[in-house]
Amino acid sequence: MSSLTQSPTWLALTQHQHTISTQHLRDLFASDPDRFSRFSLHAGPLLLDYSKNRITDETLTLLLDLAAQARLPEWIARMFKGDKINVTEHRAALHSALRNSSGKPVMLNGTDVMPDIRRVLLRMREFSDAVRQGRWLGYTGRPITDVVNIGIGGSDLGPAMVTAALPADCHPLGLHFVSNVDGADLTYTLRLLDPETTLFIVASKTFTTQETLLNAHSARAWFLQQAGNPDHVARHFVALSSNCEEVSRFGIDPSHMFEFWDWVGGRYSLWSAIGLSIALGIGMDGFESLLLGAFEMDEHFQNSPLERNMPVILGLLDVWYINFFGAQTRAILPYDQGLNQFISYIQQLNMESNGKHVTRSGQTVDYATGAIIWGSSGTNGQHAYYQLLHQGTPLVPADFLAPIESRAPLGNHHLVLLSNFLAQTEALMRGKTATEARRELEQAGMKGDALEQLLPHKCFEGNRPSNSILFQKLDAHTLGALIALYEHRTFVQSIIWDINAFDQWGVELGKQLAQGILTELSDATPHGAHDASTTGLIRHLRFHRS
Amino acid sequence: MSSLTQSPTWLALTQHQHTISTQHLRDLFASDPDRFSRFSLHAGPLLLDYSKNRITDETLTLLLDLAAQARLPEWIARMFKGDKINVTEHRAALHSALRNSSGKPVMLNGTDVMPDIRRVLLRMREFSDAVRQGRWLGYTGRPITDVVNIGIGGSDLGPAMVTAALPADCHPLGLHFVSNVDGADLTYTLRLLDPETTLFIVASKTFTTQETLLNAHSARAWFLQQAGNPDHVARHFVALSSNCEEVSRFGIDPSHMFEFWDWVGGRYSLWSAIGLSIALGIGMDGFESLLLGAFEMDEHFQNSPLERNMPVILGLLDVWYINFFGAQTRAILPYDQGLNQFISYIQQLNMESNGKHVTRSGQTVDYATGAIIWGSSGTNGQHAYYQLLHQGTPLVPADFLAPIESRAPLGNHHLVLLSNFLAQTEALMRGKTATEARRELEQAGMKGDALEQLLPHKCFEGNRPSNSILFQKLDAHTLGALIALYEHRTFVQSIIWDINAFDQWGVELGKQLAQGILTELSDATPHGAHDASTTGLIRHLRFHRS
Repeated sequence: MSSLTQSPTWLALTQHQHTISTQHLRDLFASDPDRFSRFSLHAGPLLLDYSKNRITDETLTLLLDLAAQARLPEWIARMFKGDKINVTEHRAALHSALRNSSGKPVMLNGTDVMPDIRRVLLRMREFSDAVRQGRWLGYTGRPITDVVNIGIGGSDLGPAMVTAALPADCHPLGLHFVSNVDGADLTYTLRLLDPETTLFIVASKTFTTQETLLNAHSARAWFLQQAGNPDHVARHFVALSSNCEEVSRFGIDPSHMFEFWDWVGGRYSLWSAIGLSIALGIGMDGFESLLLGAFEMDEHFQNSPLERNMPVILGLLDVWYINFFGAQTRAILPYDQGLNQFISYIQQLNMESNGKHVTRSGQTVDYATGAIIWGSSGTNGQHAYYQLLHQGTPLVPADFLAPIESRAPLGNHHLVLLSNFLAQTEALMRGKTATEARRELEQAGMKGDALEQLLPHKCFEGNRPSNSILFQKLDAHTLGALIALYEHRTFVQSIIWDINAFDQWGVELGKQLAQGILTELSDATPHGAHDASTTGLIRHLRFHRS
Repeated sequence: MSSLTQSPTWLALTQHQHTISTQHLRDLFASDPDRFSRFSLHAGPLLLDYSKNRITDETLTLLLDLAAQARLPEWIARMFKGDKINVTEHRAALHSALRNSSGKPVMLNGTDVMPDIRRVLLRMREFSDAVRQGRWLGYTGRPITDVVNIGIGGSDLGPAMVTAALPADCHPLGLHFVSNVDGADLTYTLRLLDPETTLFIVASKTFTTQETLLNAHSARAWFLQQAGNPDHVARHFVALSSNCEEVSRFGIDPSHMFEFWDWVGGRYSLWSAIGLSIALGIGMDGFESLLLGAFEMDEHFQNSPLERNMPVILGLLDVWYINFFGAQTRAILPYDQGLNQFISYIQQLNMESNGKHVTRSGQTVDYATGAIIWGSSGTNGQHAYYQLLHQGTPLVPADFLAPIESRAPLGNHHLVLLSNFLAQTEALMRGKTATEARRELEQAGMKGDALEQLLPHKCFEGNRPSNSILFQKLDAHTLGALIALYEHRTFVQSIIWDINAFDQWGVELGKQLAQGILTELSDATPHGAHDASTTGLIRHLRFHRS
């Protein structure tokens, strides 16, 4: 048994869960008219209502004890001041420095990192202004009309999500994202583009990411097929990387490399040069609003007492459901079409950070860690998988996100959208009792066996927890705050679980094995030693490809 | 205790799971060189390798006993011959009739449904040919360039998924899908379109679906703003519905209504008139290939012995992990960019069908039912959430889907894609032992404390199950088979769990409550009686909207 699961607080929470599991949220609300005001809070542009969770004051007290026991405040301070809390890689996790608008220095190994950050931001502004204003010209002298960001994982999901969420009213540029090594991704994207007016951004910290480099080389070949002269590559390819040598080898002018640093993890990199396509899409002022929104959440996270701290409350509630209710997932359900890609983004953020099975010091955990994040736009989900949320057997805690105002007002649409969001959180919480269902069926003229047979299918257990996160309107500032909220919430979980949220060793084995298999798929005679399944599949593929 | 969980087979499976849980797939492979050939099978264009599951012959025997106990063969026969197996709605579940290419009649209430089906298919062919060939003209005499399908849930996900998976090499038409009631969805779609050359398909069985009708009315207003005369609506709007009256009221000529029937569930409707946008996208011949692929899977499902029956094997494996390993989710990981939307489609199919908590006869279940389906394109997932699949704590059974040939061949891309798919299934299965990890670290020159500290982070438990589903190339025929495979797999689960896979009462409560809340959001004085949370949120919204 680990010291965590043996700790008095953990045991008290286990005990307390037995009590809570017999209580219905309906009753908790009925007995406390102030539940909403007690269990809701503001941070920057966000309102969080967490009163529809299966908690009481005692739950929060115990969860906050757990945070204190894990020395959460100390860890928060350590992260912001650049301690090397990514212990397995001996690195800091300083993404907060990228959005530090305080004017104060951030010291790392005795040097202030802020001047470097400001220098890159300035270069991003100059470059994105030049491209957006038509001053950056392609090899035939025409301005750029389309930008293709080639990256994968953290070099793709963040920029793709933000630019989808914040489409400019009149986009000066077409923005495209190519990530999949499946040739269809690049091929179908390039089909509509003109090499003379297309700019490629190759985003890879190491500049050795297999998928990205393969796509980049294929894009380069497509470009040169028309442009001919390799010197023209310099006008049409820029790099987001920290590997100057590889970038030059590709043919990109090192002065067109936008730099970031080893203390910027891939899944925390949209705030860095990786955000260049965001700046190109919404302008550098928009990008800086995004940074400012995140900075305000950083301040809130650092300075608010734990019990009024939004990322802390959310992170602890996640622990509550994962470790004490056995929830393996959490749904994110945005009632804003712009947040469709937010789910994929948070999937990476949360699952790559906390999908770990050993503690910082290398002990195998005896408790559940990171959950599976899933979901999609709320109204669409209502007509798809909400059936399971309401009447299925797994407990799925859910985040509902909704804007008070629409970015695209259209008749009654937004009120209908909001009424659905509210109704769903209410329905999940209340459910419908047999008495209520019976009354409705009787009112509909049903009786006898027909009624009795249908009745159980019309009942809803309710007692399904949700968080509601409201904001005025989805803009860059709000989105910045929202992303930072989820970052810190992820960090809070990791502290409770005593895991390193900043490494990702689990991605290595597959990469390693793929190298060998690639040779076997292409070579005249395969030679690897695999299990019967992998061997069988390789044979089948070789046979049917020839 | 239910009779299911008390049954000897169930108890034997519980017992057997204890044995299996101590065995590693590595060892199962090591002790059986024939494991691949024994645990793989073909159906139509698909090869299923299920040897990387945590099973032995005994597991399969017991699972097949469970199927026999549930009288699965009888239920399969009942579904195909049109018995009213959707007991709560007194309806048949006859989606298989929509793709019945046998020439044999399908009787329902004493009438053969096939003539009606063929009649609608013929009308779909005439209409889609006319539009695709430029013979169907808009109100100013110009041919149609763009089609907007307005629908939600089953009236959206299927057509959107299929047309995304099978982009025609030279699409004669732009295809757009609007589903979300968020005004942004329709607004941003219409921004690029011309009313003179746009055709709207309004897809709603009842023609009363709130979101769809709101979007349809807003689209109509947009159209009439330019077209002026309401008579022109008939040239630009068609309906997929079974409610002739409501369709006429909207201004759609009833002769432009494509009909389907109450025995076609929404999530099984892409094979019906709901597939009209598919026919418009890939042509009616393509649509009929899709039907044929599904028909072949229907034949396989009806005629293969259970132990060589692909949907049966997959459905039973799902039960194995959900009920005996406590898995709450299943990942779908396609190594084909075209299958990106397949996950959303299967989410609805599986979660709406089997997210149920009472049996057919109304008993509350004491076992888990439907799992959460999630995932995304495989290579992208590798750079995002695969960390959790490899080193996280929840067990996530995964389906890997891969085409032997690419639809968009490009240099080495497809071999890289395939090598990654294979490597991931191998890595999940084998893992990496401490001995292996230690050797690698030593070879990299590490030693002492540094090595010991890093070692546990570099180990992979392995023993993670997966299915591999291979096909030659993603085309309409293959996709039809694949969808039908997942439909029947879902049905198999429902039979084991003794639940009705064809109703969806769980979506009603939210709809009901939304009606009241909509009034409260718009009225001068709100008047509803809600919990403090819902009331608090309504107040907040009202205050900040004014």
